[in-house]
Amino acid sequence: MDLQSINYVIDTFFAIFTMTLIIFMVPGFAMLEAGLVRTKNVSAVLMVNTMIYAIASMAFLLFGYSLAFGDFGSDSMSKWAAFLFQMAFVGKAINIMSGGVSERAKVIPLAIFTVIMGAVIYPIIVNWSWGSNMLEGTFLELSMYDLAGSTVIHSTGGWALLAAIIIIGARRGRYSEEGVIRVIPASNIPLVTLGAFLLWIGWFGFNGGSVGSISSKESADAVALTIMNTNTAGLAGSIIVGIIMYFQYKKLDITMILNGALGGLVAITAGPNLYNIYTPILVGAIGGVIVVIGVSFFDKLKLDDPVGALSVHLLNGIWGTLAVGIFANNGDDITFLGQLKGVVVVGLFAFVVSFIVLFVINKIVPLRADRDEEMQGLDVDECGLEAYPEFKRAF
Amino acid sequence: MDLQSINYVIDTFFAIFTMTLIIFMVPGFAMLEAGLVRTKNVSAVLMVNTMIYAIASMAFLLFGYSLAFGDFGSDSMSKWAAFLFQMAFVGKAINIMSGGVSERAKVIPLAIFTVIMGAVIYPIIVNWSWGSNMLEGTFLELSMYDLAGSTVIHSTGGWALLAAIIIIGARRGRYSEEGVIRVIPASNIPLVTLGAFLLWIGWFGFNGGSVGSISSKESADAVALTIMNTNTAGLAGSIIVGIIMYFQYKKLDITMILNGALGGLVAITAGPNLYNIYTPILVGAIGGVIVVIGVSFFDKLKLDDPVGALSVHLLNGIWGTLAVGIFANNGDDITFLGQLKGVVVVGLFAFVVSFIVLFVINKIVPLRADRDEEMQGLDVDECGLEAYPEFKRAF
Amino acid sequence: MDLQSINYVIDTFFAIFTMTLIIFMVPGFAMLEAGLVRTKNVSAVLMVNTMIYAIASMAFLLFGYSLAFGDFGSDSMSKWAAFLFQMAFVGKAINIMSGGVSERAKVIPLAIFTVIMGAVIYPIIVNWSWGSNMLEGTFLELSMYDLAGSTVIHSTGGWALLAAIIIIGARRGRYSEEGVIRVIPASNIPLVTLGAFLLWIGWFGFNGGSVGSISSKESADAVALTIMNTNTAGLAGSIIVGIIMYFQYKKLDITMILNGALGGLVAITAGPNLYNIYTPILVGAIGGVIVVIGVSFFDKLKLDDPVGALSVHLLNGIWGTLAVGIFANNGDDITFLGQLKGVVVVGLFAFVVSFIVLFVINKIVPLRADRDEEMQGLDVDECGLEAYPEFKRAF
Repeated sequence: MDLQSINYVIDTFFAIFTMTLIIFMVPGFAMLEAGLVRTKNVSAVLMVNTMIYAIASMAFLLFGYSLAFGDFGSDSMSKWAAFLFQMAFVGKAINIMSGGVSERAKVIPLAIFTVIMGAVIYPIIVNWSWGSNMLEGTFLELSMYDLAGSTVIHSTGGWALLAAIIIIGARRGRYSEEGVIRVIPASNIPLVTLGAFLLWIGWFGFNGGSVGSISSKESADAVALTIMNTNTAGLAGSIIVGIIMYFQYKKLDITMILNGALGGLVAITAGPNLYNIYTPILVGAIGGVIVVIGVSFFDKLKLDDPVGALSVHLLNGIWGTLAVGIFANNGDDITFLGQLKGVVVVGLFAFVVSFIVLFVINKIVPLRADRDEEMQGLDVDECGLEAYPEFKRAF
Repeated sequence: MDLQSINYVIDTFFAIFTMTLIIFMVPGFAMLEAGLVRTKNVSAVLMVNTMIYAIASMAFLLFGYSLAFGDFGSDSMSKWAAFLFQMAFVGKAINIMSGGVSERAKVIPLAIFTVIMGAVIYPIIVNWSWGSNMLEGTFLELSMYDLAGSTVIHSTGGWALLAAIIIIGARRGRYSEEGVIRVIPASNIPLVTLGAFLLWIGWFGFNGGSVGSISSKESADAVALTIMNTNTAGLAGSIIVGIIMYFQYKKLDITMILNGALGGLVAITAGPNLYNIYTPILVGAIGGVIVVIGVSFFDKLKLDDPVGALSVHLLNGIWGTLAVGIFANNGDDITFLGQLKGVVVVGLFAFVVSFIVLFVINKIVPLRADRDEEMQGLDVDECGLEAYPEFKRAF
Repeated sequence: MDLQSINYVIDTFFAIFTMTLIIFMVPGFAMLEAGLVRTKNVSAVLMVNTMIYAIASMAFLLFGYSLAFGDFGSDSMSKWAAFLFQMAFVGKAINIMSGGVSERAKVIPLAIFTVIMGAVIYPIIVNWSWGSNMLEGTFLELSMYDLAGSTVIHSTGGWALLAAIIIIGARRGRYSEEGVIRVIPASNIPLVTLGAFLLWIGWFGFNGGSVGSISSKESADAVALTIMNTNTAGLAGSIIVGIIMYFQYKKLDITMILNGALGGLVAITAGPNLYNIYTPILVGAIGGVIVVIGVSFFDKLKLDDPVGALSVHLLNGIWGTLAVGIFANNGDDITFLGQLKGVVVVGLFAFVVSFIVLFVINKIVPLRADRDEEMQGLDVDECGLEAYPEFKRAF
């Protein structure tokens, strides 16, 4: 092997390794969401997660990747590895959205949205942020720093979800007319926990791989620091939520604590390589607090989100992007205003376009299951099978 | 480090990485099969999967590896890494077989078959295909191209399963005398989904690692293309089955869709490195169609296969091997007839020898659980414990 | 890239890879333990596992790592990767301890113990064994060889568990006054199996990564041999337990067989790089036998350990460390007496300090749930939610 090939080989290998970690997020999201919904909707949720991975990745292969990056190509690693790494991202933004409308959204309209999101909407945002940059030279050109997608992926998914929730409404019985919020318990806590940790591990690949190279001492340090800081923010997010839960309720609600971890992980994602090793404690802890406040806040607005995705992904995606403008050790190029502009431009685009697309889809193929289907659970009509047919239900 | 050692180091590391991904297929198969069978047989299925990994790997260490490859040894990477990578494969062929006879096959005769398969039958097939080639110079010598085992592993396991199903028969009550096929629903869909995605991820290691090296630009490209094409075939297999399910039944049966993905993955396995990036869509989609047709076909023949392994692994193993003869971009060496000869020679050997071995085992230690045990479920007699003792059964 | 950087890059990448595998042990332990306890305690067990990862890692970041190693720093790889690899270990010793007191230990006192263990107790033991060695030159200085922690992690966790069990006592109803031992069945066997295999895979990272480098031919061989031998010991442990179960009960108890695998894995952990490829069969098989004997032995002593951690981790940690003194191919430096001294010094320290700390904690915040809480299950009071609220219980 000649010296020049070594970087190419190592970075290709590293992209494959980190891509693989990200793919663990597919069962990660699937298990998390399947555990958080009621048993009668579990097969449908698993179906949606599977379908999103399949359709979004295929749409990205056939259309989205070229739209985002111009063409298959990379000098510094195998162009196929570069594709694989980017492809692993696509479905995530849509997973975020689908999770929040679960227990009432039908599969087919979600599949149609997935095609459009994977082929057009998400690739355009990637184009502006990490890709061939069609905004270059215009007044909209972004100077936002967003290493692994606090805005590009998490807020984008969150904005699409907000649009979807506004269109589709809350689950029946969730908010009474007297303003009482009915708690709908998660059906399978081991799945929630498994899913959350698969996501956590996937995040090492997501953020670590986004450094783009590991084949020099400097980049190896950057990758390792990125993963360390990513992990630290997850630790802090879960610890702070645990403390809040304990002092508020004397109960350590494991689903909130895991969402706290995920909130911290989303928040750190914009710039894990730009902080010293202690700042992520602050970024992640604030992320955890945001999850706790956000969950109540959206419930007050009657925006029904069974998995807490608006708090975890939308709010923390925004927070994480702004945090880079506040705490990053990176001199001149990164400014708070630049970060804010990115949040606003991407947010407006993601929300408005998602809203229009979902609105139109909803006119043609209704997003929402009808009353009977929702009461019975979506599994029977959508999938033709129940998730746990042999277990007698307590209610 | 000197330049000559670098390839050795990187390829050893890469073999360890891909081996690790393949080992995720052990819980992958276990979860998939545990989810597809009834709750009363879940512990037995998990037991069989665990035992297969333990016994097959040990048999391969003590006997099989030398039979296949002559001796421990490798120039281009650590000989121990070369062993580990090959060892990770062994149990898979037997997992395929055990899954299809679950809910009525006893553990001890399966354990005996596992020893013989891991020590002799599978190693002989590897010897012919990838190993020291004892057929060299004979008229049986194979010219089949089979990168990661569409034939060597998947069809082999499928042929052994076909032999086993013929000997052991269908589950009681599955086919009535009037020809009605009773649907026996899967007991735990989240486990099926988790298992399928662990297998999918394992496939990246299976096929990517089978390229054998990543330490040059060319091999890094080949590895990345292999993993990309592997994934694409899985996407296509699941999408086509989803489309068929929707137009046929208006229900998206998640178990069929996941089996479609696995069918696509099996089909691509013979030559993922030999296609351009669009051909796998065709190879995988045909793989998915084969799964749908195959499941009905085997049911018509009253070949009862609770997990669909005959369709996923046997038929798609054959299809994938032949597909290389049709679509591969590789000039002269690979011919359709050469591929067909491989399919036939390996198939005949795997089926006939498995049949004889299972027939003899069955005379000594009956393969089949007796009526009472089957009705009660295998867990109590075989394992002494139930999988979910605290959950009240609906039936 | 210059030649000097290559080792640094590859070893950093390898440390990140192996660290990631170890983090899979977090859901691994969580699923294993959640499957082994009764459904009424599952959320609490998952909570404790999550909390241990969060708190122990944070305590190690803020205090423990400096105590063990002096300071952040490494020449041969990124100092952040070196930290991450060590951080991935910390929670494991505490997981071992928490598993064995589950179904009756409260979360808050365990959280307090986790802080002290992660910040002080475990780091001191690491300091003596792998770190900056504050015992150097004293008569206590250790010459024990313990590659990946048979003593440092597994026995340490086991001694802490023994102290905790002595203080907290057995689950109510487990041992009757007439000396009858009530069997309390595991609630979810698929979770147990999934957890055990995630641990098994994590072990490849644990032991393989502990070689410390992969960037020369010699170290690449050492890593591959380490992983091969680690795996072999797990195979042997599970096979021997299967054989014992069959001849003793004619039932293949999957939970015992998986614990046999884990026992073999613990036993090999002290020196997987020092054996030829066949010795691990012996080391692991003895490990499996120790699990079978140990489980009965501790039950006779009425030391109630729902997950078998005393047998798997404490006894096999001791056995594995001594086995290096018996079987290792390593000439002069390693002696049986040196190994024994390590076992005794670390064991005394871990047991006595853990006992004192737990005793004091117990005076301030009682470790044990009260009778009502224990009968009802810990999930409701500790977490405010049940693990499977919709499944009707059979008992």
